Amino acid sequence: MVASSKRVECFADDTDLEASSRMPTPDMMAMEVHKVAVLQDRTGLRSFRHSLSEVFFPDDPLHRFKNKPFFKKVVLALQYFFPIFDWGAHYNLKLLKSDAVAGITIASLAIPQGISYAKLAGLPPIIGLYSSFVPPLIYSVLGSSRDLACGPLSIASLVMGSMLRDVVSPEDTKEYLEVAFTATFFAGVFQAGLGLLRLGFIIDFLSKPTLTGFMGGAAVLVSLQQLKGLLGIVHFTTKMAIIPVLKSVFDNRKEWSWQAVVMGLSFLVLLLTARHISTVRPKLFWVSAAAPLTSVIISTIISYVLRSHEKGISTIGYLPEGVNPSSVSMLHFKGPHSSLALKTGIVSGLLALTEGIAVGRTFASMKNYQIDGNKEMVAVGSMNLAGSCVSCYVTSGGFARSAVNFNAGCKTAATNIIMASVVLFTMLLLMPLFHYTPNVILSAIIISAVIGLIDVRGAILLWKVDKFDFLACMSAFLGVLLLSVPIGLSISVGISVLKILFHATRPNIAVMGNIPGTNSYRDLAQYKEAKRMPSFLILGIESPVYFTNSVYLQERILRWIREEEERITNSNERPLKCIILDMAAVTNIDISGIESLKELKRTLDRRSLELVLANPVGEVSQKLSHSGAWELFGPECFYMTVEEAIASTSYKI
Amino acid sequence: MVASSKRVECFADDTDLEASSRMPTPDMMAMEVHKVAVLQDRTGLRSFRHSLSEVFFPDDPLHRFKNKPFFKKVVLALQYFFPIFDWGAHYNLKLLKSDAVAGITIASLAIPQGISYAKLAGLPPIIGLYSSFVPPLIYSVLGSSRDLACGPLSIASLVMGSMLRDVVSPEDTKEYLEVAFTATFFAGVFQAGLGLLRLGFIIDFLSKPTLTGFMGGAAVLVSLQQLKGLLGIVHFTTKMAIIPVLKSVFDNRKEWSWQAVVMGLSFLVLLLTARHISTVRPKLFWVSAAAPLTSVIISTIISYVLRSHEKGISTIGYLPEGVNPSSVSMLHFKGPHSSLALKTGIVSGLLALTEGIAVGRTFASMKNYQIDGNKEMVAVGSMNLAGSCVSCYVTSGGFARSAVNFNAGCKTAATNIIMASVVLFTMLLLMPLFHYTPNVILSAIIISAVIGLIDVRGAILLWKVDKFDFLACMSAFLGVLLLSVPIGLSISVGISVLKILFHATRPNIAVMGNIPGTNSYRDLAQYKEAKRMPSFLILGIESPVYFTNSVYLQERILRWIREEEERITNSNERPLKCIILDMAAVTNIDISGIESLKELKRTLDRRSLELVLANPVGEVSQKLSHSGAWELFGPECFYMTVEEAIASTSYKI
Repeated sequence: MVASSKRVECFADDTDLEASSRMPTPDMMAMEVHKVAVLQDRTGLRSFRHSLSEVFFPDDPLHRFKNKPFFKKVVLALQYFFPIFDWGAHYNLKLLKSDAVAGITIASLAIPQGISYAKLAGLPPIIGLYSSFVPPLIYSVLGSSRDLACGPLSIASLVMGSMLRDVVSPEDTKEYLEVAFTATFFAGVFQAGLGLLRLGFIIDFLSKPTLTGFMGGAAVLVSLQQLKGLLGIVHFTTKMAIIPVLKSVFDNRKEWSWQAVVMGLSFLVLLLTARHISTVRPKLFWVSAAAPLTSVIISTIISYVLRSHEKGISTIGYLPEGVNPSSVSMLHFKGPHSSLALKTGIVSGLLALTEGIAVGRTFASMKNYQIDGNKEMVAVGSMNLAGSCVSCYVTSGGFARSAVNFNAGCKTAATNIIMASVVLFTMLLLMPLFHYTPNVILSAIIISAVIGLIDVRGAILLWKVDKFDFLACMSAFLGVLLLSVPIGLSISVGISVLKILFHATRPNIAVMGNIPGTNSYRDLAQYKEAKRMPSFLILGIESPVYFTNSVYLQERILRWIREEEERITNSNERPLKCIILDMAAVTNIDISGIESLKELKRTLDRRSLELVLANPVGEVSQKLSHSGAWELFGPECFYMTVEEAIASTSYKI
Repeated sequence: MVASSKRVECFADDTDLEASSRMPTPDMMAMEVHKVAVLQDRTGLRSFRHSLSEVFFPDDPLHRFKNKPFFKKVVLALQYFFPIFDWGAHYNLKLLKSDAVAGITIASLAIPQGISYAKLAGLPPIIGLYSSFVPPLIYSVLGSSRDLACGPLSIASLVMGSMLRDVVSPEDTKEYLEVAFTATFFAGVFQAGLGLLRLGFIIDFLSKPTLTGFMGGAAVLVSLQQLKGLLGIVHFTTKMAIIPVLKSVFDNRKEWSWQAVVMGLSFLVLLLTARHISTVRPKLFWVSAAAPLTSVIISTIISYVLRSHEKGISTIGYLPEGVNPSSVSMLHFKGPHSSLALKTGIVSGLLALTEGIAVGRTFASMKNYQIDGNKEMVAVGSMNLAGSCVSCYVTSGGFARSAVNFNAGCKTAATNIIMASVVLFTMLLLMPLFHYTPNVILSAIIISAVIGLIDVRGAILLWKVDKFDFLACMSAFLGVLLLSVPIGLSISVGISVLKILFHATRPNIAVMGNIPGTNSYRDLAQYKEAKRMPSFLILGIESPVYFTNSVYLQERILRWIREEEERITNSNERPLKCIILDMAAVTNIDISGIESLKELKRTLDRRSLELVLANPVGEVSQKLSHSGAWELFGPECFYMTVEEAIASTSYKI
């Protein structure tokens, strides 16, 4: 159906006239009307296949193999599954130099962070070092990001600690370790499973507002927990929620130790200052990267010289030397705590994954390459699966250390290998040096790390852009702070999902008018220059029409008509004759929506008002056709544009 | 900003030329470009108030009170809250005549149905009659539908029975009644609460596919349950699920009674034939309406004459005479079963409400009046609240009896009063007559009533229109049949909601082209005549851009660009210069969506590709502006139409 060539005439010459005198011109009458096409029938199976491939393979991973010889295909597949073969093939000394600098820098951050985060999770400090050794090695083979630095994460550690401590006491080290390793195993299975099943989009459901609120709440929680170390309190609650923690702090005022407070606050100020310097001048990234290790060294020396552990400052104490011992025998899939381990594994695994992928994507976009979410999940999952067998707990790519890595000029995932080597060296030779490291310094390191997670500016931006998102953010924040980590998280995921449903339940309807001098019709509320068309009511439905909104839309359209008729009566304009629904934004429709349209048509027929639909899109045209509504309504009900609908119905009026 | 009058020139004269030669004409160059307006700022509070009023008062219930004197306002308010004052004021003998015929007709249906449905819920038969007396009277005062006939419902009875029997044995009559009345009380509170809080839209979440599947499954379940009566089995399972029921049937083959089978099947055939006659000829509505009572009378006479209760046919037995006794003392809000009562009340109350409102809406639309969902909820809730105090269980408006009511020519809610009077007369004087009524006839009545709920045609239509909806339907069907009623219901509500989320997670992107002879741009897949514009890639995003799809859209758009560039290379066309996103269907955007747009812009800038947005709608323009993205992108990035975008960027290419 090729249209013959005719000039489309618009309401061009009458923009200065009153709206009520805007009669159809002869030109308009002669306007050619285009048939609305119904989207070509895909057979059920093909359409289903298409849907599936959009869900699971939106990136079309096979496109790189197209038209390649067999050998090349094998190499490509190897490079696809093990990215190390990709970058490893072109590796050279220059890259190594860059990576070595970055790797040593992040190692100096990773060692104190590893020890601190393990304590946060309620685990012995040495587990944090173990977790900074094996997982980064695995990531360097499987990971597709060039900037991610792997190891324990503050949020995942916090969540694991808070969920496990509710049931198991960290005092009972063996049982606690067993549950923690089993949870790590489940986290790995869950993460790799999501990736293999290509369900990576599930992490997208943790929206920005949710994460902003959650991270903020978690950061406050973690910081409060550190009051134990900062104040030198010995008897402290094992609960994470804000009330028992504050109670512990003030009930044990007698245990406060001024030596711990002075030392802790001094180093906290030092660390925060270092962080600030690096934020303001990214070139000085090494200031904040080196600050934790420097603090550890200085405080250990002070502590050793002053014998401060005798003066109310507790120290880390003995750490065993040697590499990761096997923990396969500690994985228990039956028994009283297996469901706890499963739950903890899924929640902390999900959060670790979300952080890792978000960080990976951020830096990839800065360097203009793409990472494959599903592949990253498999890499992170493998890290945790393997880690759970060699005394590691949940790990992923962390924001802080990846930022340092990026600023230190990392080039490939080899930085992880170098970092792991430094950690190995430490574990083999330097463990006795940590004996006198005061615990208060670990608290200061944790606080300075998590305080950056409180994103006040982000929250303000949310308030500006969308009040509902701000609500979701605050719910997550308060939920985590006052209730518990999993509850806070569920509430805010729930609110984010409700927002989508809400949009689909109460969609906006725009009353539209002609933009003078064009044949476009736009929202009267948005375009002040848009003019109503006498005798017509043009409504833009701004949502798919589903069971959740079909009744609402039907009744709301009738209300619009009632209000328009009242307005017309009051202003003595020409009576309403025709309602045009602009369907451009109705991207889908279901049975309930079709029923509602039919009913609306019947109702308006009885009131001698015409109902026509402009610009039904592909999917909608197809569904209207399959349900028989297309024939029922008749072809004179469908127009390609609002303009053609007006021109055609003008005849009859 | 009023546009000056210029003729909009289109690609009118070159439709016959090759697409690749379609250069911008001088006319196009001179085309006036309209500034994209940003939706005027509503203050946070006003926008919030507007949102709230759309959620809770979409029908603007106060509009009828506008500009009315005080006395009139009082009368209108009275009529609003008690519709009986509305229709009662104009009531006359002619209306009474119609209502009397309809009322007596539905009473003849309501009495046997009441007895049968009470048995379905595991309650003594007399409770079914009590429930057909008080609730209809209350509805006639508060209800806004003219066609709804109230009383017990098959589905709600089934659900209540199945949920209660899992925990409490119906043999323990007192305890069972206590839980049932308490559940009814909770159902009433829940229903009236939804209405008062104007949360009526919640029932819209039970979508058509869900209900079709659920009703079908429930009908099969109920029918299978009736095998007990039809086969005359004495020892039968109290479970509802299909496996234990079939096991009961075949394990107790010895108890099968041929007398019961013969009598049951004969009357079932009679009832189904009567139903068929009334379906084919709606004028003969009285055939199906009178059939149940006729069957009861005939079977009772046969049973009395043949003394059949001595021959393996059980009968109803003694029914107490008199009106509803008070049951206030049987409502227990504490104790072991209160949470069961709460759960049962909410589920059965929700289903009763859904049926009542759907039926009310259906008949209202046939007679061209509107019912107010929230008001109906208050009416139904009051029925159940009051009912729970006078020995009634969950009631609402039923489909079958309302259809009979409609066909019998009912005019107002007075039919409910007349029906209640007939029930009262029966309860006071005719109870001994039911002594010999065989139970098998009640089973036949139930089967013939619920078999109509199996909507095979509806399921086929779902298959045709949307495979996903069909899946939701079948999940509800199988879930109810094989698992349990609440689980089946939750699964299918979950699937319906997932469908909406899915649409928001993997939205369609349409590649668009110019419709020759117009300035419209449409989906190439839908309109075969649409032509690509050389150097341009026009993508229509068919969904709001949210956190659930922002990453997908960003990556999918890059894939579209990659594929377009491959196509261009293969066909030796002019290289791609500009990507136009048609935002007409992007009805909303959130922070993540804005971030993705920014990142896409950055990525394309690096590749020297231009990105422009056409027709951002009100809400989106506002959010882009508030987040600062509008200024960041610059005005040359936004166009009112795709055409103006092409005309303007043509300069630079």
